[in-house]
Amino acid sequence: MKEKRIYNFNAGPAALPLSVLEEIQESFLSLNGCGMSITEISHRSKEFDAIIDDAIARTKRLLKLDDKFHVLFLQGGASTQFCMVPMNFLSEGQSADYVSTGTWSQKAIKEAQIQGKKIKVVASSEDKNFSYIPQNIQFSSDARFVHITSNNTIKGTEWASYPDTKGVPLIADMSSDILSRPFDPEPFGLFYAGAQKNMGPAGVCLVVIRDDFLQSVPDNLPTMLKYTTHASKNSMFNTPPCFAIYTVQLVLKWLEETIGGLDKMQELNRKKAQLLYQTIDAGDFYKGTAMPDSRSLMNITFRLPSEELEQKFVKEALANNFAGLKGHRSVGGCRASLYNAVPLEAVQALTDFMVAFERKNR
Amino acid sequence: MKEKRIYNFNAGPAALPLSVLEEIQESFLSLNGCGMSITEISHRSKEFDAIIDDAIARTKRLLKLDDKFHVLFLQGGASTQFCMVPMNFLSEGQSADYVSTGTWSQKAIKEAQIQGKKIKVVASSEDKNFSYIPQNIQFSSDARFVHITSNNTIKGTEWASYPDTKGVPLIADMSSDILSRPFDPEPFGLFYAGAQKNMGPAGVCLVVIRDDFLQSVPDNLPTMLKYTTHASKNSMFNTPPCFAIYTVQLVLKWLEETIGGLDKMQELNRKKAQLLYQTIDAGDFYKGTAMPDSRSLMNITFRLPSEELEQKFVKEALANNFAGLKGHRSVGGCRASLYNAVPLEAVQALTDFMVAFERKNR
Repeated sequence: MKEKRIYNFNAGPAALPLSVLEEIQESFLSLNGCGMSITEISHRSKEFDAIIDDAIARTKRLLKLDDKFHVLFLQGGASTQFCMVPMNFLSEGQSADYVSTGTWSQKAIKEAQIQGKKIKVVASSEDKNFSYIPQNIQFSSDARFVHITSNNTIKGTEWASYPDTKGVPLIADMSSDILSRPFDPEPFGLFYAGAQKNMGPAGVCLVVIRDDFLQSVPDNLPTMLKYTTHASKNSMFNTPPCFAIYTVQLVLKWLEETIGGLDKMQELNRKKAQLLYQTIDAGDFYKGTAMPDSRSLMNITFRLPSEELEQKFVKEALANNFAGLKGHRSVGGCRASLYNAVPLEAVQALTDFMVAFERKNR
Repeated sequence: MKEKRIYNFNAGPAALPLSVLEEIQESFLSLNGCGMSITEISHRSKEFDAIIDDAIARTKRLLKLDDKFHVLFLQGGASTQFCMVPMNFLSEGQSADYVSTGTWSQKAIKEAQIQGKKIKVVASSEDKNFSYIPQNIQFSSDARFVHITSNNTIKGTEWASYPDTKGVPLIADMSSDILSRPFDPEPFGLFYAGAQKNMGPAGVCLVVIRDDFLQSVPDNLPTMLKYTTHASKNSMFNTPPCFAIYTVQLVLKWLEETIGGLDKMQELNRKKAQLLYQTIDAGDFYKGTAMPDSRSLMNITFRLPSEELEQKFVKEALANNFAGLKGHRSVGGCRASLYNAVPLEAVQALTDFMVAFERKNR
C-alpha cells in the first residue's frame, strides 16, 4: 500500500528522507535479521556497536574531522549544551564572548549567567529584531571561547561565513544547519546540534569536541554533565538513545551515499532556497524578513500583506498538503524550513502554490 | 512476510510487546494518516499533544496517582536523576538518607557526594555482595528524603514492600520494576524510571513528582536541571524525545487494555518468575544468587557449576533463540530479565531448555 505523504516544511522535528523511513519500517521487527527490534537490542550488543561506530565514522568523514575531534551523541538537546558549555569550560577568572543573534543565542547566554559565569555579549542584532548577522565584531583577546548560533531557526538568518576570532576558539550551536554545507572545523573547540532538524528524530544531540577542550574539564562536576564522561565511554556511560542514534546513522549514510556529501548537499540546498527567495522577491506580496546578506538557506521567513492573509495562506497550504508553514509562535508570519531532507520538488510545488495564492489574493 | 523473532531476556533495552512494535511499524510513514512519520511531526502539533497527554493520563490511572503528582518525561536517563535529585532537594543544612543495595544505588550516592551534599548511607547490603534487601533500617527523623533503588537489575534483588520511613518522603529509582506491580504512591516525594526496561525504548525517563517537592526547587539552577521547568511546560520546555514518548504511550495502552492493569501484570509476572525460580531451585545445578526473601521478579540471576558451563549455556541458549542471558559484565554468571513484555511462553521455553541443558551437562 502506498502511504499518504505530504510536503513537510516543519522547523523541527522535521522531514526525514523517505528512503530512511522505509528502511526503519522494513527492519523494525527484526534488525538485520537478529530477531529483535532496534528498540529492543542491548546498547552493549555487537549490533549497536556497529551502528554507533558507523554513525561516528560517517560524521567524521562528512565534516572532515581529524583525530583531535571527538564525536558524541548525548541526550537533553541543545538546551542542555547551553548549560554544559559554561559549566565545563569557564572556571573562576575566565570569561567568554557570546554573540546574540536571536532567541536561541539569548537562551545560551542566560544559562551562562544563571551559573554566575563571566561572559560578555560582544555583538547583538536585537536592535533590528534579529534580522541580520553582526559583522566586524571586536572579540576579547583573552576570551576562553566565542559562542555563536550558526543559524537562527526562528528569525531566518544564518552566518554566511564564520567570524575571524583571532585565535580564540569558536563554540557554535549548529542545531538548524549542521550538515547542510561544508565548513572548516579547525577554529572550533566544540559545536553541537540537536538532531531533529537535519540529522534525525528528536532525542539525540550531536556534540563535536576538540581534545584540548576535553582536557580542561574540571573533575568535580556531576558525572552526566561532564564531557569527559561521555568521551571516555564512546557516548555509552549510560544507556544511549539507541533508536535516535540508529536513525541518525541511516541519515548520514543517505547523505554520503545518496546525496554524495556536503558539497553536493550545499548545492542542492542553495537551489532550493534560491527558488523560494526568488518567488518571495518577485513582487511585493511576499516580503522576506531577514536582511538579504544574512538570509538562511534552511529557514526562510516571510510575511504577507496582512495577518489575515497569512492565516489564510497557512490554512490553504495545509489543505493542499504543505505542512509546517506557520512562523514560530513568538514572531508570527510564515516560515518554510528547507532542511536537507526536503526535496527540490517540494519547494517547486510550494512556489507554484505561492504564485497561485498571490494571483487569487492580491 | 513473517519476521524472525527470538526470545528476548535482555536487561535493558529489552523486549517490547509485539503488538506495539507492529503498530509502530504499520503507521511509521504516516502517523494516523497525517502524511508524516512520528519522527517528523512537530512536538507543538495536535497529534503530539494527544500522544503525550494520553501517556500522562494512562500513567496516572495505572499508578493510581492523584492530582498532587506530576508526570514528566525527561531525557538523560536515571543517571541524570541521580544528579538532579540532590541538586533540587538538598539545600544548605539539609540531609538525606540513602540505602545502598547495588551498583545503581552506589551511583546515586556518588552523585550526591560529588555535589558536596550532606547524605547518610543508613543501610547497605554490600557485606554480602548486595544479595539481599536490608530490613529494620533506622532512618533519620530529620532527613529531607530517603532514597532507595526498588529493584536491582544487576544483583537480582527487589524490595518486596517499601520501608516505613516514619513520614520521611521516599524517593526511588524504579527503572527496572516500574509498572510491574501496583504500589501505594502516597509515601513518595518522587520516583523515576528509565523507560528502556518496562516502558519503552531507551531515550526517555519517567519522573513522577509530588507538588510539595516541586515547590522546594531553588530558582538559581540551570534551567534544564530544574524539575519546575519541565513540570510547568508539560515536559516540552525543549523538544522532547517524541518517538520514545509515543512508544511509551503505546506500551501503557497495551498494559491497560490488553493486560488489564497492574494487578493482572503482577499476577503474570509472579507466574513467570515462579516458573524460573522453581527450575533453578529444583536441583543443585543452577543456583540463584539473591537471598530467597529478596528475589526480584524482574531480573533473575543464577550461576551454573562452573564458568565454563555458564559460557556454554549462554552460547547454546543463543543458538536456540534465547537472547540476553549473560549476567552483567561486572558480576558474571547468568541473568534472565522477565520484564512485562516477556511472555509466559518465553519463560516456559527457557525452562524447558534449562532442564534439557542440565540433563546433558551435569
